[in-house]
Amino acid sequence: VRALNRKSPCKGNAAEKIEAVVLCLLNGRKQTLALAESCTGGAIANRVTNVPGASKIFLGGIVAYSNEAKEKILGVRGEILKRHGAVSEAVARAMAEAARKKFGVDFAIAVTGIAGPSGGTKSKPVGTVFIALTGKFGTTVERKLNSTGREAFKQLTTRQALEMLRLRLICS
Amino acid sequence: VRALNRKSPCKGNAAEKIEAVVLCLLNGRKQTLALAESCTGGAIANRVTNVPGASKIFLGGIVAYSNEAKEKILGVRGEILKRHGAVSEAVARAMAEAARKKFGVDFAIAVTGIAGPSGGTKSKPVGTVFIALTGKFGTTVERKLNSTGREAFKQLTTRQALEMLRLRLICS
Repeated sequence: VRALNRKSPCKGNAAEKIEAVVLCLLNGRKQTLALAESCTGGAIANRVTNVPGASKIFLGGIVAYSNEAKEKILGVRGEILKRHGAVSEAVARAMAEAARKKFGVDFAIAVTGIAGPSGGTKSKPVGTVFIALTGKFGTTVERKLNSTGREAFKQLTTRQALEMLRLRLICS
Repeated sequence: VRALNRKSPCKGNAAEKIEAVVLCLLNGRKQTLALAESCTGGAIANRVTNVPGASKIFLGGIVAYSNEAKEKILGVRGEILKRHGAVSEAVARAMAEAARKKFGVDFAIAVTGIAGPSGGTKSKPVGTVFIALTGKFGTTVERKLNSTGREAFKQLTTRQALEMLRLRLICS
């Protein structure tokens, strides 16, 4: 993966890893990033920290795998978890906003979903995931159905989350 | 990666992924795990959460990439960071013990080091990493020099960290 201290623009092409493109864009804007991951379990942080120089931009993340961690460590209100369930738009939003505040960053991404193989329901089958992006602009949440199996689910969700941020950065 | 709900013992062999062996051992003892990662940047959490059923055992982790995150989110005392530097035995120990307390788990692993390519010093060259394991037994810290390049550094450190826990579990 290419380091951040180059001079060419952060174009991104088929050969360029999305984590490098996103960090390059953030670096150019002197903006920072934090993460709150549930179902991806650190996969996004892992990808982001593969980029040399990531520590200038990526301040950290919380892998809130249990509901207790979402509440106690991240600071999502228990009421939201109870009312909407951990895999919900409301919780994804709350996780992202809590992470942004806690780390004091410009952008935070949060994901909550069902990686499988178990844990699915009729209304939220295995592969369901909510991805939230928050920043000064506000907060957006996307719902996806990544029915790909556990490890591919994590990688696909990681790519979708970073793509949400990339689009926000190039369109604003 | 094999799921946790099988009946055979958690032997571990060349074909078995270490994250599956460790989670299988913890599952048999009904014990829980949390992580505090600096230089591995979520790589350990990512590996652990590849195992189906991991959520029963792995409650969560904190990727404390910045010193501020180590202090504010994880709860490492600023004095320890200042006196010893972020890459030190003392900070690895403090990170592990803070994570164990914060998540209320049986075992916590923490890593702090220099993934590179920059950031090395004469006494702590690129590749230096301190891995701490804490539990009811106390806390142990190992120092390694993984001069392998950034991505391989993360994978090698992940393996060493999980191996420390595996040995603790089979020898106690």
